[in-house]
Amino acid sequence: VTSWTVRQFEEVSYQVRRTHLVLNPANDALARAARFAAGSRRLFIVDWQVDELHGGQLREYIHHFRVKGTVVPVRSGEPNKTTNTVLGIFDAIGSLKINRRDPITVIGGGVLTDVVGLAASLYRRGTPYVRVPTTLVGLIDAGVGIKTGMNYNGMKNLIGSYYAPTQVLLDPAFIRTLPERHIRNGLAESIKLGIILDRALFELIDANLREIIDSHLNSPVGDELIDRSVDGMLNELRRNLWERELRRLVDFGHTFSPRLELLSNGELLHGEAVAVDMALSCVLAGGRGLMPEDDVIRSIVLLARAGLPVAHRLCTPEQCSEALAETVRHRDGNQHCPLPTGIGRACFVEDLSGGEIASAVEQLTKYVESMEL
Amino acid sequence: VTSWTVRQFEEVSYQVRRTHLVLNPANDALARAARFAAGSRRLFIVDWQVDELHGGQLREYIHHFRVKGTVVPVRSGEPNKTTNTVLGIFDAIGSLKINRRDPITVIGGGVLTDVVGLAASLYRRGTPYVRVPTTLVGLIDAGVGIKTGMNYNGMKNLIGSYYAPTQVLLDPAFIRTLPERHIRNGLAESIKLGIILDRALFELIDANLREIIDSHLNSPVGDELIDRSVDGMLNELRRNLWERELRRLVDFGHTFSPRLELLSNGELLHGEAVAVDMALSCVLAGGRGLMPEDDVIRSIVLLARAGLPVAHRLCTPEQCSEALAETVRHRDGNQHCPLPTGIGRACFVEDLSGGEIASAVEQLTKYVESMEL
Repeated sequence: VTSWTVRQFEEVSYQVRRTHLVLNPANDALARAARFAAGSRRLFIVDWQVDELHGGQLREYIHHFRVKGTVVPVRSGEPNKTTNTVLGIFDAIGSLKINRRDPITVIGGGVLTDVVGLAASLYRRGTPYVRVPTTLVGLIDAGVGIKTGMNYNGMKNLIGSYYAPTQVLLDPAFIRTLPERHIRNGLAESIKLGIILDRALFELIDANLREIIDSHLNSPVGDELIDRSVDGMLNELRRNLWERELRRLVDFGHTFSPRLELLSNGELLHGEAVAVDMALSCVLAGGRGLMPEDDVIRSIVLLARAGLPVAHRLCTPEQCSEALAETVRHRDGNQHCPLPTGIGRACFVEDLSGGEIASAVEQLTKYVESMEL
Repeated sequence: VTSWTVRQFEEVSYQVRRTHLVLNPANDALARAARFAAGSRRLFIVDWQVDELHGGQLREYIHHFRVKGTVVPVRSGEPNKTTNTVLGIFDAIGSLKINRRDPITVIGGGVLTDVVGLAASLYRRGTPYVRVPTTLVGLIDAGVGIKTGMNYNGMKNLIGSYYAPTQVLLDPAFIRTLPERHIRNGLAESIKLGIILDRALFELIDANLREIIDSHLNSPVGDELIDRSVDGMLNELRRNLWERELRRLVDFGHTFSPRLELLSNGELLHGEAVAVDMALSCVLAGGRGLMPEDDVIRSIVLLARAGLPVAHRLCTPEQCSEALAETVRHRDGNQHCPLPTGIGRACFVEDLSGGEIASAVEQLTKYVESMEL
């Protein structure tokens, strides 16, 4: 037997920047990130709603820097997170004949940045790209890591890659034009980080909820919320970019929710399904004596005050058990279920039983009724 | 402006082993590579022709280790290097409900290992896989690196990823059942390595060509050829696994050939198109005084003796110039064209002109006529 061992390290490096008014020509952050050069071609893949709202500004920005920009509006949203959308993005990149190292730019929500990231990771085995998230979920969650993905065969993000953008530009101004429901949707991920690892973030949201929502995060408290969330998120992600470690605190709220979100067939937004999962997980933690009941109730109440669902007709014991079984397959045969041990800290459990889940679903219903949520 | 920098290193590590009779139950290399455990499920994606020839042996092997193996035969060959084949592999993996870290095994030629590698890299953002190349190109070239790919929109390997197998098992016994044309096809890649970086490998082939072909590489000289080729290949690949450096010696013969291969619409095998490209590149090198004329002729003669084409009706000045333009787009706007400076060494040129290519095509025709090849 002759054998050879190949062992190498790939460096992955990217920058996440919070900036202000990214489409104002006075701000050259995007021009630098996308390496604008007068006369060069650049591709911009833009959520079609973002294009309606900000497309004029984007074209002026491109024109200002004398770049030959092609803006391709794409329908996004969960139902469009498909193979066909990815192939369409290949075609858009292909029709431009750009050089291998010229970055493309994606401006949109988490679904669009996920699918464009996937297409970019594959086109010529990797085309650099710049992410400009326009939703709150994008700003604090989907937009800042290196995961890309699309749904396949009824499974959320079954197909995807780890592929870092060259830069991520976070501009809270996009949140201004976001429907309130999507703000609440994004808040679910911030509340998640608060419950699981940052009590101060939880308190910040708890104390300023009205102002955060009313200002659409365009306020000093909004900036603080974004910065604390991105901080918490990146601290978790950076030591586990490729998810070699499958015990991930940031998976809190993501044990039962993938199936729930998919079964709801678009009725539940990602953060809404996560909120139901978090409420159930807090009750599970309470039932085990891991989380004090006061904290369980405070968490459920904050989710409800944020306008998020904390129970759902699809969240039955049967569906939750099936959801857990699916999640276990993604976690190498283990539950690795993060449960809070109080607000701001957590542990992992490996032995949730169907009976325990059924009791928790029942208990959650009782809480919801008694709270008159 | 608040900003965060994420910088991490991903370790990539895999083993390439030359082994003997990999489907003989007495050899547990595959069982260990695919982490066989009695009663566990494993997926085997197998070229349908390999399945016809060796499928019985494979099933006995699986049975011997008491694994619940599912063998999926797949039609391969360049025309099947498509999106649909990749989606079919997703479906095959999906129907098995295997755990995230259970490896799948691909047994087949370079095209199949490329598309299964692509599918594996994407399924759950990475499913481990074991490669068992069954063609000579697979054994010494496509099979030993980390590139995966599929064709798209008439472009070879336009879509792909870098994704290391967990292990590669090289078994020359598969070559025994290979049609002679495919042996010649694989030899092109060995001759390439000989011309560009290993004079001793060139001499080995030159001195033992008949025996190498007649024994289908199942001989001590065949083993030596494989070991020297894999050695040379891995030494080039290992310091540039992700092709950050676009000046790659192993791209010799791959400047004009991708277009040629695609235009020939299946008439030319990969190594055959590479042979035409190498012959032309040697003439280009000779024309510049980089390569002594004796070496140019010796190289062309060896290719021809190996039964490889050294000229082709599609290899016109126009098509070669267009091919170069396409290659330049893959090399970040540069030609980075490897040209030999003698047998066993090479340099890169950046300034090939259309006129120079036209002269070389003409000169190559003259050589071919005078050699009565």
